[in-house]
Amino acid sequence: MKINNNTIFSFIISLLLFVIFSCKEDGDITKESITETTISQEHPKLILTAQGVKDIRAQLGTIPIFDKTLELVKQEVDTEIAEGIEVPIPKDYSGGYTHSRHKQNWFILQKAGLLYQILDDEKYAKYVKDMLMEYEALYKTLPLHPKTRSYARGKLFWQCLNDSNWLVYVSQAYDCIYNYLTEEERNRLETNLFRPFADHISVDSPQFYQRVHNHSTWGNAAVGMIGLVMDDEELIDRALYGIKDLKLDAREKDDDGGFLNKDGKAGFLANIEDPFSPDGYYNEGPYYQRYAMYPFLVFAQGLHNVKPELKIFEYKEGVLLKSINALLNLSDANGDFFPLNDGQKGMSYYNSALVTAVDVSYYYGNQNSGLLSIAKEQDRVLLDDSGLAVALGIKNGKEQPFDKKSINLSDGSDGSEGGVGILRNENIELVFKYASQGSSHGHYDKLSYSLYEEGEEVIQDYGLSRFVNIEQKGGGNYLKENKTWAKQTIAHNTLTQNETSHFTGKYDIGSLHHSDLHYFSSENENVQVVSAIEKNAYPGTTMLRTMAIIKDEDFEKPYVLDIMKVTSGSENQYDFPFYYLGQVLQTNFEYNSPQTLKPLGVKNGYQHLFLEGSGKASDQNSKFSWFNNNKFYTLTTMTNNKDDLLFTRIGANDPEFNLRRDPALILRTKNSKNRTFISVIEAHGSYSPVSESAVNSNSSIKEIRTVLDTDNYSAIEITGINESVKLFITANKDASDEAQHNIEIKNKTYKWSGPYYFKKK
Amino acid sequence: MKINNNTIFSFIISLLLFVIFSCKEDGDITKESITETTISQEHPKLILTAQGVKDIRAQLGTIPIFDKTLELVKQEVDTEIAEGIEVPIPKDYSGGYTHSRHKQNWFILQKAGLLYQILDDEKYAKYVKDMLMEYEALYKTLPLHPKTRSYARGKLFWQCLNDSNWLVYVSQAYDCIYNYLTEEERNRLETNLFRPFADHISVDSPQFYQRVHNHSTWGNAAVGMIGLVMDDEELIDRALYGIKDLKLDAREKDDDGGFLNKDGKAGFLANIEDPFSPDGYYNEGPYYQRYAMYPFLVFAQGLHNVKPELKIFEYKEGVLLKSINALLNLSDANGDFFPLNDGQKGMSYYNSALVTAVDVSYYYGNQNSGLLSIAKEQDRVLLDDSGLAVALGIKNGKEQPFDKKSINLSDGSDGSEGGVGILRNENIELVFKYASQGSSHGHYDKLSYSLYEEGEEVIQDYGLSRFVNIEQKGGGNYLKENKTWAKQTIAHNTLTQNETSHFTGKYDIGSLHHSDLHYFSSENENVQVVSAIEKNAYPGTTMLRTMAIIKDEDFEKPYVLDIMKVTSGSENQYDFPFYYLGQVLQTNFEYNSPQTLKPLGVKNGYQHLFLEGSGKASDQNSKFSWFNNNKFYTLTTMTNNKDDLLFTRIGANDPEFNLRRDPALILRTKNSKNRTFISVIEAHGSYSPVSESAVNSNSSIKEIRTVLDTDNYSAIEITGINESVKLFITANKDASDEAQHNIEIKNKTYKWSGPYYFKKK
Repeated sequence: MKINNNTIFSFIISLLLFVIFSCKEDGDITKESITETTISQEHPKLILTAQGVKDIRAQLGTIPIFDKTLELVKQEVDTEIAEGIEVPIPKDYSGGYTHSRHKQNWFILQKAGLLYQILDDEKYAKYVKDMLMEYEALYKTLPLHPKTRSYARGKLFWQCLNDSNWLVYVSQAYDCIYNYLTEEERNRLETNLFRPFADHISVDSPQFYQRVHNHSTWGNAAVGMIGLVMDDEELIDRALYGIKDLKLDAREKDDDGGFLNKDGKAGFLANIEDPFSPDGYYNEGPYYQRYAMYPFLVFAQGLHNVKPELKIFEYKEGVLLKSINALLNLSDANGDFFPLNDGQKGMSYYNSALVTAVDVSYYYGNQNSGLLSIAKEQDRVLLDDSGLAVALGIKNGKEQPFDKKSINLSDGSDGSEGGVGILRNENIELVFKYASQGSSHGHYDKLSYSLYEEGEEVIQDYGLSRFVNIEQKGGGNYLKENKTWAKQTIAHNTLTQNETSHFTGKYDIGSLHHSDLHYFSSENENVQVVSAIEKNAYPGTTMLRTMAIIKDEDFEKPYVLDIMKVTSGSENQYDFPFYYLGQVLQTNFEYNSPQTLKPLGVKNGYQHLFLEGSGKASDQNSKFSWFNNNKFYTLTTMTNNKDDLLFTRIGANDPEFNLRRDPALILRTKNSKNRTFISVIEAHGSYSPVSESAVNSNSSIKEIRTVLDTDNYSAIEITGINESVKLFITANKDASDEAQHNIEIKNKTYKWSGPYYFKKK
Repeated sequence: MKINNNTIFSFIISLLLFVIFSCKEDGDITKESITETTISQEHPKLILTAQGVKDIRAQLGTIPIFDKTLELVKQEVDTEIAEGIEVPIPKDYSGGYTHSRHKQNWFILQKAGLLYQILDDEKYAKYVKDMLMEYEALYKTLPLHPKTRSYARGKLFWQCLNDSNWLVYVSQAYDCIYNYLTEEERNRLETNLFRPFADHISVDSPQFYQRVHNHSTWGNAAVGMIGLVMDDEELIDRALYGIKDLKLDAREKDDDGGFLNKDGKAGFLANIEDPFSPDGYYNEGPYYQRYAMYPFLVFAQGLHNVKPELKIFEYKEGVLLKSINALLNLSDANGDFFPLNDGQKGMSYYNSALVTAVDVSYYYGNQNSGLLSIAKEQDRVLLDDSGLAVALGIKNGKEQPFDKKSINLSDGSDGSEGGVGILRNENIELVFKYASQGSSHGHYDKLSYSLYEEGEEVIQDYGLSRFVNIEQKGGGNYLKENKTWAKQTIAHNTLTQNETSHFTGKYDIGSLHHSDLHYFSSENENVQVVSAIEKNAYPGTTMLRTMAIIKDEDFEKPYVLDIMKVTSGSENQYDFPFYYLGQVLQTNFEYNSPQTLKPLGVKNGYQHLFLEGSGKASDQNSKFSWFNNNKFYTLTTMTNNKDDLLFTRIGANDPEFNLRRDPALILRTKNSKNRTFISVIEAHGSYSPVSESAVNSNSSIKEIRTVLDTDNYSAIEITGINESVKLFITANKDASDEAQHNIEIKNKTYKWSGPYYFKKK
């Protein structure tokens, strides 16, 4: 705290404040110190509280990250105020002018409301009031939005989802200027704008509102937040529990092919209950969790402040706060979320929803000092009670690195529907997906994975086929290639059988099933393993995939060992791709390159792959090395000379250039019943284009081979170029920590307990 | 200067030093203050001087960037000393073990020599001596290097070039420990190692040594530097003037197709005279200049110190120092050199040769404070007299930004052989090449250009097809696709006539010609223009290309206007490509996408292009927008409905995946005699994958059209979407600054003086 020395008076004030805040250790404010005094029906009460306002005003000028955020927000809002209010008649899809303008308005309204409270400057209140009145005048004249593509059209926007976004933010603005308005003004706004607005997105749009889906969460929060501000118990109830006495047809589907309301659940609590696993994994994946997070947390804050008796942050054993931890762990070294399901790459914990998540988690959780380092990277805080707490934490030097380790996150509301395992060692991260379908945004990608080095993709997951909010690309919405390519199994680093996607690419079937964890083991720092089984993707075929990241003294960097054990009652063609990124360096097998490129197939995603080369695999080990981001990589995979190796590139049957022209190497085997695919992926060395020196550009593996592969065990021997030999054995049946194993391989006995064995021979 | 307060004694010493160095303004050391006292035959004398050693020792500990560099070098050398000396029998190509080891040795020897002088620690002298003795023992036993691919095989390395590298560095090491050795030891080294070494790369390898080429510069410098250390006038003469009385066959060529010695010139002075233009442009381009720079500057330093009477830094009106300025200007916003000719992307002014260049330029030039900011970014200095001067400059806070502006660099030893024009405005950089062939590393790319935004490629130049020092890719050497693709005209953003490269792709013909500057104009900050003409690439066809970067109030960012006026006596097919990088967003023309991809042609580079789509151009304006690095770009180009537009992708007939799969849009017109290609390229807006907001994603151009196109003038009207109209007129004939123009277009008269006219209508 800086002591102001301009006048004796201000010095004394400062001193007093210092004494007051020094009562808490290090001057921190925790939720206990504030919330107990702020439970009142005073406005603001929703996110920013009356007590919070007092505390913030007292600290202003002494809390750098808060002060900086405030200054930026002030500049932004002042610029908007200077440019004047614009409330255009709705016309465009996302990316178009009216969409962007109304979107901008909701942000500015919310910010102007905060500024009014924090800076106590009426110009902000007046601005909010004036704009709200323009909305009031417009809204009562509005029919449905003219664009017809949505399954639930809004009025300000082409979809109810965006109308809900608007109300979630604008409720906060209304709360902030509530006391500034006359009762007559409030009545006018509530009668002509807020109440009908809340009705349109709920009772008038049950197909949007009455379900368990991130869209509905926004709807619930919007209705609930305006309800809290208006003190309208009907709206609050509708928000928490859904529209009373309404049941929808359980078989109807939305635009994305998701069921509208399969089991009749609805409302905010159901939306917490259902999609979050006990570990806090959100069943649509991190990209959608990030999107849904804001309404979850902001409405939860409102409920916490106005209806503390609900104990919303303790609901389902504190799953909301757990979910923030899960979400942060679902990001790579740069903070970018892993693009599971329909995730757009580049979304990261720098997103403003994550500023909310981090600040809320810190304040309402247990003040995890690792969160402060992320907040510092985000370089801004919420302008509310939680942001103040974070700002003080940083100011008081409490931050610690947020240390991401290997983590297993169960999926399913009770944690029984598979999950996502993330293995981490040094700069290598592997994301292994054995989750449930992931709602309508799910991909047919059972037991798929992606691999990262220092936050850069080594083996990529394609992500989605969409350019969110870029109007030129299908209005910024899902492109048809999202279904024909991105969701298909062959677009993923997992097994495709007979050129057909998992569950024959049918959402109804996929939604019935999930993979199951076989084991997850991360106690040994040098050997991180995850193993899962999938029995339903291809009836009659079982896939057991065990993936490990192993740090081994004979290798420069941790490497990936991948054992995909496929057993089937029938003969099949198996395609097993590696979506490497970068430039081919070398192969140890011969291949031919066709003069003309043809699509690899006609459907299920194969129509989008060009065949750029095909060869016969080597007997024993096929090796393939590539170069990306000035680093070297080598795949060593066990093959036989009947296997084919196909070089493919995405982009066939893509007349609008919607797909990236990315490569893959596909291992194909025909007429196979049982087959265990065994591969090692090494990251090694580096290249500097400045010094032009290549370091460790070759694989350190001489050979990998199977020494045992039965129903019970798979054992792999890895021989280094220095002739060192390592043995990895995975238990294919009983993989509990307690299980005792005792097997003989080539006259030698191996005894161990637990799921796997790894040792130098 | 930090005053050491441990003891009174050291305080007094410090005070004395302070007084001594304060005699020069701000404590700086300039070349005048040192060199006049150091011209002696004392060792060291070559780069580090005896006086320099004294000055450095006096300042150690008070010059942060120097101290830091010294510490890193010390750590590096100490590690090597601890690991022991390795001098293996030569065996490998570049990238292989023996190559890398000997290369590492030359660096360490040079550094250990410096450490001996600066730290006055005998362990470094002993290390240098011991390793030199091992080289002495090995060298006298060596036959030619076993690898046979070079036109001039070395003994330690597969090519004389690398042997020369070794000697350039090792001469410095020898100089540093000269006085540490006994006379007998010196005799042994000189007789068995240095003298025969110098002979091998010169008199025994005249095809390498006796020419004007960056290889020879290394050879000359190597011979000259060891000559300076040994005080051997014969070697020094051989270095400066070439091998006496030797003339080579002027028609012989080297591995790369370059003439070995077309005009009989040789020696270091000829190598300065010939390749550098008066502006300091090096005729092979910045990538090779960077490579050649080190021997130029380090030998020049040696000559300056030992033979000041030569006034080497004043040679050819100070071209060596001018060339450093030219080189720094040939880099993009990130400091990466533009990949003209066979340049590998990613090479930048962070390369160690540029540390030499910047420090030498600062010290021996006029202490340009802009160089200090680059030195600071480089974060290291030379451990010699010049590095000390830079360290002191930084310490004394003299640094200024190195401000890169538009610049025109003439090519040719007398500046008459075309050149390279770089236009810059805000974050947009355009590199326009109208130079001579560029020696054996030249491409057939007359009047080609590349375009950058914030150091990222917008319209790329492919660069070379080579992975320098990555052994898996053709031993790290030129790949055959360098000739079949990278050098060909169709690989560049310029005109290809009848699917044939400029000069029919023949080096002998290309070397006879160069383009000519028509005009370069950069006085008007908002309108930067370069214009050049090419008459020989296609006999009977003339190309006059005028390119401008215009900053215009109606546009967010500066845009490119490109007027390529082609006149021919015969009907031809013209292909005019745009090597955009990124994802197609939108076109205003229809096109078809083939199911199977076929090569666009059979030779001259066309065999490497797949045709991914083809359409008929729009009448008037064809528009194409794309998306890259989260920014938007739009091409608006004048077309008629007989023109074809082809979407191509590199990668056909590339069985070893040596080429990047990069796209282009090619405008093709058939049966044309005269055609003026007129295009505007706009960079606009941005996208954030974190906030998912797209800003200004659409073109600001409604229409471009030609209002006049004669032998004398081309006039283009650019109409914005806001209906603002701008007129650009370029003088196609008399474009001098003094020329008075007076023309009538549609009953309106335009009068101006100078090469172009630009105004809002």
